[in-house]
Amino acid sequence: MAASPAAALAPAGLELRFAILDIYAAYAACLDEQRYNEWPDFFVDDCIYRVQPRENFDRGLPLATLAFESKGMLRDRVYAITQTLFHAPYYQRHIISGIALQAQRADGYDVTASYLVLRTKQNEPTEVFNTGRYVDVLEWQDGELKFRSKLAIFDSELIANSLIYPI
Amino acid sequence: MAASPAAALAPAGLELRFAILDIYAAYAACLDEQRYNEWPDFFVDDCIYRVQPRENFDRGLPLATLAFESKGMLRDRVYAITQTLFHAPYYQRHIISGIALQAQRADGYDVTASYLVLRTKQNEPTEVFNTGRYVDVLEWQDGELKFRSKLAIFDSELIANSLIYPI
Amino acid sequence: MAASPAAALAPAGLELRFAILDIYAAYAACLDEQRYNEWPDFFVDDCIYRVQPRENFDRGLPLATLAFESKGMLRDRVYAITQTLFHAPYYQRHIISGIALQAQRADGYDVTASYLVLRTKQNEPTEVFNTGRYVDVLEWQDGELKFRSKLAIFDSELIANSLIYPI
Repeated sequence: MAASPAAALAPAGLELRFAILDIYAAYAACLDEQRYNEWPDFFVDDCIYRVQPRENFDRGLPLATLAFESKGMLRDRVYAITQTLFHAPYYQRHIISGIALQAQRADGYDVTASYLVLRTKQNEPTEVFNTGRYVDVLEWQDGELKFRSKLAIFDSELIANSLIYPI
Repeated sequence: MAASPAAALAPAGLELRFAILDIYAAYAACLDEQRYNEWPDFFVDDCIYRVQPRENFDRGLPLATLAFESKGMLRDRVYAITQTLFHAPYYQRHIISGIALQAQRADGYDVTASYLVLRTKQNEPTEVFNTGRYVDVLEWQDGELKFRSKLAIFDSELIANSLIYPI
Repeated sequence: MAASPAAALAPAGLELRFAILDIYAAYAACLDEQRYNEWPDFFVDDCIYRVQPRENFDRGLPLATLAFESKGMLRDRVYAITQTLFHAPYYQRHIISGIALQAQRADGYDVTASYLVLRTKQNEPTEVFNTGRYVDVLEWQDGELKFRSKLAIFDSELIANSLIYPI
């Protein structure tokens, strides 16, 4: 049975689906629990991370609110938000749904999802902060799924200047 | 192994579960990315689609905000929202959770889920637009899951007159 | 095949994952459909249920908005909210995502998830009510998953005094 390609692929397929669900859950928990130092480890070294308004993405315009092109740049961002940026702290809460395996490449997977990030400032009620779509590429690295590319394409342009923590 | 009914059913069961998750993800993406022309294709020909306030649904009252009874009527609605209705455009973002296979019928599946739709108007912040519960019947058609019936039972009556796009 | 431990474990693992997804969906549906009498049955007899602000949880402080330590206390709460508490009724809508199996114990499972609860009061629009993280322990009882412990750790302290129904 184990030697049958079809039988071997089927469970792998379902386990892959859960592995994909799991990385999104872990990614969200990392950010929401403010373990920012662990955030870059969800990415491969030569990664892409962009947070971009939907209008620009749909028109192919390059302008992005955040744009990083390596794990080192992600680490710089973590240093900035934890050590140097002056800002009122807030909690984030990621709600991610519709995680869909769009295509399987030779070296990875195209995955999309919808996200909602809620924000809670100190002594204020929780509010809708940002919604949009993740357009991601994942790949295996040493037995773990990592993001090669992660785009957070958001629906409203009105969040740009107050975005401190990663989406 | 493949001839054993129990063994054959078990993986089918898990694959079915992912197939159900996938149709909800694809349905949400279709609407959120404004590919309205593709929306009727998520349904069988003699489908039911209704958007109805919870109070009416719970009391068995027929009044619904939207009520369509065939794929043709869904296509008419698409024509209306893309060609004839005068309205300020807005983005939708569906967050769907708790997708549950409630029962298996001879010819399909009863599935429920909770949904949240966020709305983003141009130059405005994203806001909660509509929440409720999907009460759906799915069936296989030519190897694809389709909605035979889809009810969006919403929690607040205050959205009715501003609802343009499908939920 | 059925005698092979590895082969037997693999599907069990995936079925377990769906069983976990299913209890969260059923739990949310029970509350959102106001079947409060069924709510205690999601727990074992000597259960823990707490709703606690994040600040207190993170600092190890015991103060909680709600704290129950047995199924009997949950039943008392149900009696209170359905029979004795004076309050304006509202609908809840739970959106739960990122359901993650964190660890497997000898007698159960550590599971975490993110939740968003929306509230709809009569003749008012739906609003964000409460967000946070479930930190739960589940175990099997007579073939059904039950909560041995369920903590709802919420992000904003501003909901406390208006919280009537379970989260």
